Amino acid sequence: MADRLVSLGIGDTTQPIPTHILSGLSGAVEKLGDASTYSGYGAEQGMGPLREKIASKLYNGLIDPSEVFVSDGAKCDIMRLQTMFGYDVVSAVQDPSYPVYVDTSVMQGQTGELEEESRQFDGIVYMPCTAENNFMPDVASLPRADIVYFCSPNNPTGVAANKEQLTELVNVCRERGSILVFDAAYAPFIREEGVPKSIFEIPGAKECAIEVNSFSKYAGFTGVRLGWTVVPHDLKWADGSSVHTDFNRVMTTTFNGASNIVQGGGLACLDDEGMAEINSLIDYYLENAQILKTTFEDMGYKVFGGTNAPYIFISLEGGSSWDQFNTFLEECQVVTIPGAGFGPGGEGFLRLSAFAPRDGIIEACKRFKENYDSKK
Amino acid sequence: MADRLVSLGIGDTTQPIPTHILSGLSGAVEKLGDASTYSGYGAEQGMGPLREKIASKLYNGLIDPSEVFVSDGAKCDIMRLQTMFGYDVVSAVQDPSYPVYVDTSVMQGQTGELEEESRQFDGIVYMPCTAENNFMPDVASLPRADIVYFCSPNNPTGVAANKEQLTELVNVCRERGSILVFDAAYAPFIREEGVPKSIFEIPGAKECAIEVNSFSKYAGFTGVRLGWTVVPHDLKWADGSSVHTDFNRVMTTTFNGASNIVQGGGLACLDDEGMAEINSLIDYYLENAQILKTTFEDMGYKVFGGTNAPYIFISLEGGSSWDQFNTFLEECQVVTIPGAGFGPGGEGFLRLSAFAPRDGIIEACKRFKENYDSKK
Repeated sequence: MADRLVSLGIGDTTQPIPTHILSGLSGAVEKLGDASTYSGYGAEQGMGPLREKIASKLYNGLIDPSEVFVSDGAKCDIMRLQTMFGYDVVSAVQDPSYPVYVDTSVMQGQTGELEEESRQFDGIVYMPCTAENNFMPDVASLPRADIVYFCSPNNPTGVAANKEQLTELVNVCRERGSILVFDAAYAPFIREEGVPKSIFEIPGAKECAIEVNSFSKYAGFTGVRLGWTVVPHDLKWADGSSVHTDFNRVMTTTFNGASNIVQGGGLACLDDEGMAEINSLIDYYLENAQILKTTFEDMGYKVFGGTNAPYIFISLEGGSSWDQFNTFLEECQVVTIPGAGFGPGGEGFLRLSAFAPRDGIIEACKRFKENYDSKK
Repeated sequence: MADRLVSLGIGDTTQPIPTHILSGLSGAVEKLGDASTYSGYGAEQGMGPLREKIASKLYNGLIDPSEVFVSDGAKCDIMRLQTMFGYDVVSAVQDPSYPVYVDTSVMQGQTGELEEESRQFDGIVYMPCTAENNFMPDVASLPRADIVYFCSPNNPTGVAANKEQLTELVNVCRERGSILVFDAAYAPFIREEGVPKSIFEIPGAKECAIEVNSFSKYAGFTGVRLGWTVVPHDLKWADGSSVHTDFNRVMTTTFNGASNIVQGGGLACLDDEGMAEINSLIDYYLENAQILKTTFEDMGYKVFGGTNAPYIFISLEGGSSWDQFNTFLEECQVVTIPGAGFGPGGEGFLRLSAFAPRDGIIEACKRFKENYDSKK
């Protein structure tokens, strides 16, 4: 009999939503059933109390509530940002990176052809993230881009940039007049002291950066759909006009607010009880990551990420990422993701997601080890 | 003491969500709290059972479930359609119409300047809807457009096109190779026999039309956020390639599915109990519309809509819509919407929304009458 398939593929949460956060969702549903508490359309930018709570609880007041735009998720916000940027811009992306930055740039008409050999789109600046540079590109040595997408902790590498690295990034973007779109969707997984959880911890970031964020991985909200984007008032276009004003126009014209039920859940997330529940959930996934990391290190692999992130990124030492994907799928019945799926720079790596039930993680590790031992 | 303000302005539902539909929402929340029923990311196109139920219950099988894309609302879908259409198209809109068609065309870069005198954007075909043509534009006599936006029952006029008129519209679009974007968000308000609730009731529509729709006004879901768009497989671009394939790509790249909680509510809407609840809600708003309509007719106004729609559109017989808006606001403390807000063709009209609690409707009508009598 074939073993059951274990998925360590897409970064989809598997643990149920904890009690307090769940009560925020169900409380919001109840309100809609009562004429005295029923509400219809809300502000496209999100409920005032949620914007305030995000600013105070997650940013310690580093940003103003009016700079927070609540949404139905980071992916959708990236597209709305692209709608604002238009087709006449050059974008830079980490290579490898979350595919949505490149996909939406292509869709928006910013790019030329896909070059056969390099597997890179013409018109995109690929910022190489390799084991050699600790997955931190030397942005200053690369061509200037109008928009720089940067995800930290990174998907897929699992590596979080430190304060020095982010300071350098912010400085380069400011010098060049680039807008930095900082994707902080995995920020709550940062447990190391001194590693910034928001780009706005870096001086000067409010003059060059937009931060995209999400409740998806915080609280098991991947299917619930809640995110937010911070656009500082200090951020200006080259002509001195306000980026915030334009993004506000995009949001109010093309979006009608996140679901009021879901925003009720977001409010509960940011209560002290909710924050404690989120911490426990993240502990669980980080323990998963640790088990995966140790298993592969014990087998002699070079492993990145997994400390401040729910992903581990395994170097195949020159091996093909699709071959290794197939090997693990066929011989271990475990689904992973080939690094090449995140851009040409991901070739030679495999991404494993720690979003899985514990027994699945343990079972997968057992199979990996047996497979490894059988080939010694 | 000033009278309390009554809002007959924006079309926002005011009645609570009925019991069975509410149980669909709360049941979906409960599922997320239990490991055995928890779900994360769903299909970007929507849950299979919901797509099936929409196709069978709302379209009597006229369309295939795979042609349904479930979303977080019609406004967002219109923007996603615009993303697919790109900047190099000419759009036609009813004048007056729901402002989002023009706003997103402008945002997408399809238009030129706003002409000072006509208040029309260069590059948009305005299809005049006037009392004289029964609010049905003579599309064949107007310049060809690549995309024709058509809303019926119409917002703001409240007029629903009949089968003959829609057949003519479909025929013209097919002859000209125009894509018809049919906005059917108010379809459930149609109570008259023989008036189509979907464009797909018209022969040939599957070869030229996309239908945008929404649960917002069905079930008090304006803040809950659930809609859908139907893109038929038979619809092709000029080069013969599939529009469905392209829209599927837009949805999967730029959207992550409607909230699973909200889709649970959508499933309950389409149960027999849910459909009965929706009917009662719509009866309530249609009775409101009738009260408003009769009140203004009794005062000698010419009134349109209100029979198959939640809006009534009042002719001011040459008067300014902003002046009348101000008069009603200042003298009656009632908020309405000036027709001019829906495009230049709305000048000389006032839109009243029937989405209000009954006592608000009765109070507003009392004040309108007193104001009218005081000026006799």
